[in-house]
Amino acid sequence: MPGYRKVDFPVHDVRRFLEPGPIVLVSSAHQGETNIMTMGWHMVMEFTPSLVGCCISSANHSFELVRRSRQCVINLPTVDLAEKVVKIGNSSGRDIDKFAELGLTAEPATAVSAPLIGECHANFECRLADASWVKKYNIFVFEVVKAHVAAHPKLPKTIHYRGDGAFMISGEETRRFRKLFRPEML
Amino acid sequence: MPGYRKVDFPVHDVRRFLEPGPIVLVSSAHQGETNIMTMGWHMVMEFTPSLVGCCISSANHSFELVRRSRQCVINLPTVDLAEKVVKIGNSSGRDIDKFAELGLTAEPATAVSAPLIGECHANFECRLADASWVKKYNIFVFEVVKAHVAAHPKLPKTIHYRGDGAFMISGEETRRFRKLFRPEML
Repeated sequence: MPGYRKVDFPVHDVRRFLEPGPIVLVSSAHQGETNIMTMGWHMVMEFTPSLVGCCISSANHSFELVRRSRQCVINLPTVDLAEKVVKIGNSSGRDIDKFAELGLTAEPATAVSAPLIGECHANFECRLADASWVKKYNIFVFEVVKAHVAAHPKLPKTIHYRGDGAFMISGEETRRFRKLFRPEML
Repeated sequence: MPGYRKVDFPVHDVRRFLEPGPIVLVSSAHQGETNIMTMGWHMVMEFTPSLVGCCISSANHSFELVRRSRQCVINLPTVDLAEKVVKIGNSSGRDIDKFAELGLTAEPATAVSAPLIGECHANFECRLADASWVKKYNIFVFEVVKAHVAAHPKLPKTIHYRGDGAFMISGEETRRFRKLFRPEML
């Protein structure tokens, strides 16, 4: 740990990691303070620009850090980090420094001030693209401006939250239906 | 097929099926015409009212059916339906009647005119709650007003799209981190 060698990844293709619906970790920074939160409510909205809609409850300490800095990093944890993910989701940045308490590595990003979480399989640097639904729904639309993805393994074993403390762990991949796609749909 | 015995399910809890990020089928009806589309870009937005944000491209034949009828059903297919899901996503309601061509059963809903897909594990009847981002992002916010879920099995084997014709099939469930949750977080 961290241990992943990461490579640049095309931002228009982050759907490969986000569309399957994993729990992600949102890291943020504002005026010298950093924080991490877990997020299960997010959706890909567009390829180019690379837009992701994210629901960040105003009850979260991260809400103001993200809203004021207008930036964040969406980090993709794998099942080996599940315990830390749950601890992150059940503690508050008001009380603890989550990087320090959970032994996670804050690495510098290139396009934003929010830190990357080194132990995560992928890190997507984001800038706030649309805040018009923040008040109404706590929804932030971010543009992914820089993406870093582990060179290996190709397929991260992600965790997907079902509520009530239960996670689904991602299973096998199948490409056996690929031949049924129209070329322009791939 | 259909074969599922379905029971009423609390609408505030549809996150149990949608938050893990499965591909879903959106069925719609307007002025005597029905259609089905596949959808991978969606997110839970609120428990009560039960809100789901959905990205339905205006290039889809379903777009106008949904926009005009202001209703749809979000249906949850399992891996046994994967081939039909891909065929639905690679054909258009302009050219074919998808229920007939794919041998799917249109069952009457209770709160909306759009049909339920009998072969799916769950069916969420939806009314359009907010159309203010339809033009800007093709995003519809639906309120789930009625939910039907198969009594068995408890855990559907869902499919999660990764792009490029590849699906992740949902894997095992774990509850071993449940004890780390604060009671109010469950």
